[in-house]
Amino acid sequence: MTNEKLRIIPLGGLGEIGRNMLVFEYGDDLIIVDAGLMFPENDMLGIDLVIPDMAYVADRADRVRGIIITHGHEDHIGALSYLLQSVQAPIYTTRLTRGMIDVKLRDARTRAADINTIAPGDTLELGAFSIEFFRVSHSIPDCVGLAIETPVGLVVHSGDFKFDHSPVDGKMTDFGKLAELGRRGTLLLMSDSTNSESSGYTASEQHIGGLIEGVIADAPARVIVATFASNISRVQQIADISMKCGRKVAVVGRSMVNNARIARELGYLNIPDDVLMPLEAIQKLPPEQVTLICTGSQGEPTSALVRMGNGEYRSVSLVEGDTVIVSATPIPGNEEYVNRTLDNLFRKGANVIYDEVLDVHVSGHASQEEQKMLIHLVQPKFFVPIHGEYRHLVWHAKSAEQCGVEPENIVVMETGDVLELGPDDIEIVDHIADGHVFVDGRGVGDLGQEVIQDRGALARNGFLVALVSLDKYTNGLLAEPQLVTRGLIDESDTAELLDQVKQSISSVVERGGTRSELRDALEKALGRVVYRATGRRPIVIPVVQKL
Amino acid sequence: MTNEKLRIIPLGGLGEIGRNMLVFEYGDDLIIVDAGLMFPENDMLGIDLVIPDMAYVADRADRVRGIIITHGHEDHIGALSYLLQSVQAPIYTTRLTRGMIDVKLRDARTRAADINTIAPGDTLELGAFSIEFFRVSHSIPDCVGLAIETPVGLVVHSGDFKFDHSPVDGKMTDFGKLAELGRRGTLLLMSDSTNSESSGYTASEQHIGGLIEGVIADAPARVIVATFASNISRVQQIADISMKCGRKVAVVGRSMVNNARIARELGYLNIPDDVLMPLEAIQKLPPEQVTLICTGSQGEPTSALVRMGNGEYRSVSLVEGDTVIVSATPIPGNEEYVNRTLDNLFRKGANVIYDEVLDVHVSGHASQEEQKMLIHLVQPKFFVPIHGEYRHLVWHAKSAEQCGVEPENIVVMETGDVLELGPDDIEIVDHIADGHVFVDGRGVGDLGQEVIQDRGALARNGFLVALVSLDKYTNGLLAEPQLVTRGLIDESDTAELLDQVKQSISSVVERGGTRSELRDALEKALGRVVYRATGRRPIVIPVVQKL
Repeated sequence: MTNEKLRIIPLGGLGEIGRNMLVFEYGDDLIIVDAGLMFPENDMLGIDLVIPDMAYVADRADRVRGIIITHGHEDHIGALSYLLQSVQAPIYTTRLTRGMIDVKLRDARTRAADINTIAPGDTLELGAFSIEFFRVSHSIPDCVGLAIETPVGLVVHSGDFKFDHSPVDGKMTDFGKLAELGRRGTLLLMSDSTNSESSGYTASEQHIGGLIEGVIADAPARVIVATFASNISRVQQIADISMKCGRKVAVVGRSMVNNARIARELGYLNIPDDVLMPLEAIQKLPPEQVTLICTGSQGEPTSALVRMGNGEYRSVSLVEGDTVIVSATPIPGNEEYVNRTLDNLFRKGANVIYDEVLDVHVSGHASQEEQKMLIHLVQPKFFVPIHGEYRHLVWHAKSAEQCGVEPENIVVMETGDVLELGPDDIEIVDHIADGHVFVDGRGVGDLGQEVIQDRGALARNGFLVALVSLDKYTNGLLAEPQLVTRGLIDESDTAELLDQVKQSISSVVERGGTRSELRDALEKALGRVVYRATGRRPIVIPVVQKL
Repeated sequence: MTNEKLRIIPLGGLGEIGRNMLVFEYGDDLIIVDAGLMFPENDMLGIDLVIPDMAYVADRADRVRGIIITHGHEDHIGALSYLLQSVQAPIYTTRLTRGMIDVKLRDARTRAADINTIAPGDTLELGAFSIEFFRVSHSIPDCVGLAIETPVGLVVHSGDFKFDHSPVDGKMTDFGKLAELGRRGTLLLMSDSTNSESSGYTASEQHIGGLIEGVIADAPARVIVATFASNISRVQQIADISMKCGRKVAVVGRSMVNNARIARELGYLNIPDDVLMPLEAIQKLPPEQVTLICTGSQGEPTSALVRMGNGEYRSVSLVEGDTVIVSATPIPGNEEYVNRTLDNLFRKGANVIYDEVLDVHVSGHASQEEQKMLIHLVQPKFFVPIHGEYRHLVWHAKSAEQCGVEPENIVVMETGDVLELGPDDIEIVDHIADGHVFVDGRGVGDLGQEVIQDRGALARNGFLVALVSLDKYTNGLLAEPQLVTRGLIDESDTAELLDQVKQSISSVVERGGTRSELRDALEKALGRVVYRATGRRPIVIPVVQKL
């Protein structure tokens, strides 16, 4: 036993939902658990994705012994192609997750990495760490949690989990292993906090099967079900129910098609060949024999369901009598898009079933009582809640306290905090980069807060650029100023405003001054003119050139 | 009896939540019911407010016999100052609503209108219409519904309502009057659809009193409650509970202070002078004697609660031990802001109580069973659901059908539809303007979709303006091109990109052409250069001048 401590650094996913990434460091050895992305919030304007700040691992790339991926959701695999650009360590994950990573890396044109398939029960030695995988149930098959033997003690990482006693794939969270970890003596438990606002237990995935079956059995014509493309278990259930009701099934939407294909190839989605049909073929059947499973449950503008609602999806036109089931809950921030989509589906005359009126979705994450059950099984000395916004972490910490973990042994930490763990002590010792790394177009992390603020200002009131060309000898105007504006006023109203702007420019120029004095004076004067005329404050940029 | 029909035109509030405004027209007489605003959706960039398109009533201003306001919420009074600019008809409303309108018109510097106070039970003759007011309960005192006798028959308008059997002000919806209207024979019922997705009954406002009392009685130190400033009943309850628990009360936030003042002056809010204290004075008391009631329950960026969470509110610093109750549900679209605010309050160490963990809010709108009860009481021949997004209207129509209204007598219509009603028939005959009228700065309705689209493009990727000055004789560059960009890339990265842009300009200029040919060629070439370098597509605007 040395005096050295284990360092644990979340690079994402603590104090926020998404971009999960954890670093474990001991001596010369680092391992990384998950590399996920986060979808931008509504005021991160123009941003495609948000990923973790990876500088810490990039600087120590040669000491990274492995990258472990707990399951195939975007918030766990979505930043992998970015991570591999600086860290070329081997990847370890389960079979289905590997299949999904393969597709993702091919899409990102990232060169084939060293990916290794592991299975629950396997143990992996990576430097100072010995990692045992155990099965957990969630909303995608083939999820694992981790029991990491470290020189300071055993660390258990729950992965994303729920305790589903009747999962669709029949594969339950491994209670026996968890109890064994408790007996063996767990130093630290790190556990999924996503649902820690919810009291009680999360319902089984099979619970909604009955509800959905009721709807499909009663549907007079075509059924269209929208859900998450990654929710293979849900797709399986809908296909099973459809078969029972004498229907064939087609999957619609790029990510749905891709995920269904890979899951079928690997044996995680079982739909007979004569049931799963191409979209063109299924449309020739009588409507009461048709189920379509599609993307768009979050109101994503280019998704199949949204385009059906708009009447812009050529392959599928909604008609009265269609039954649409939206089997998902809006992710915070998406409510407006989802509601708009629902309204458009109603306008088409569809019978629409969604979470507000029938419970056609269950979460893949443990609620409070399951979180407590995990803590009781594992009986950790120390506890760190992971995967959640700040309030989720706080609620989870309260549950741990209720389960008998000493309050001073519970640490609520956020992305970028550095935790040091010894056999008898736990402490946040530092805080490293925690900024959002924005992905926008080809740029990764090249966008600072200033650009986002400019975009915000442009979104509110647009801009006015005024080009003033002066005679370098007389300092008089060489020509009419050139004015460019967008996002400020309607084109039909611009002429009058721009006349006032030109007059203002003339009088500023007459007063004279250096180029920078003129620029400052113009910025103020033009801002005033525009505000007086419109009540708006666009970004005003005067450009003065002397020719 | 003539053959003439009654025309009913919703100028807002049908197929959308907010900007409620209804026009009733018969012969030469028009009346207007409500004139509300709508808060912009997240993708209505830079817009302050959305109001109804009032052209129809502006064109007929001299025939408007009166403007009736059912209650004092923004979605019913917020567009009144705009309406009065074109229609100078007398306003009729209840006492508290009148007080709130007075404040609003003063703020908007709209000249004192002819406002008349009415009370439930009063009858008002306006041209062809005879309007009787009846009391309804909602989340603000002094709300009325309308029984409008028209030449074609009786039209009942529910106002915003719920059936609260124990309202805080003791004033219940007038069941007797509703039953009488049913007996008298109601031709058309128009009823509030806001909550028609919710099954069952909406809880009484007093239901949450017990829950909030439990929290306040147990609070070890200061209590801060955020709710809607207009929810006078909630403020009353919180004040009553606080008194019971030996606390004094202060109200915080501009709209909360204004509403509390006017409601107290008019006798709708009863807090003794020695209990309601100024903020500075209350802060000197021991924390366990303090309750603050404040704005910010929707995460509004400049509100008191949000600034407390950020640590930017000088007058109130949150400390560990403070209890914060957020007594409201996020309006769709506000979830991200609300969650962010909750997280910040948790970060300050406050004990935060909110809808996800305790039911500390009830709606002011009727749920399905109450909606059905109203239909049964009034027994209308025809039914039109109002106040709601499209799906809400559809659910409400289904309820009406369940209550025995003939399906062909139920009309789901949207803003801008023109309904004609006779004693035996109902029909949508036309559709007039339904566009969103945007208020932005001083501009009202001067912003078209194009400006909003430009703002969207600017928000995503910013802009690049290139000013190219050419010698009018040689067509060569007179000077370095002037480049202006915002919202595209970080300033630290611009130099390299702008060099490439300048090279591209040089080669386009060398190829020559007319000004408009050059402009087109530059737009394409620069767009390509920027896309190749960044993967982004800003608005590119070349300006070519020949000097």
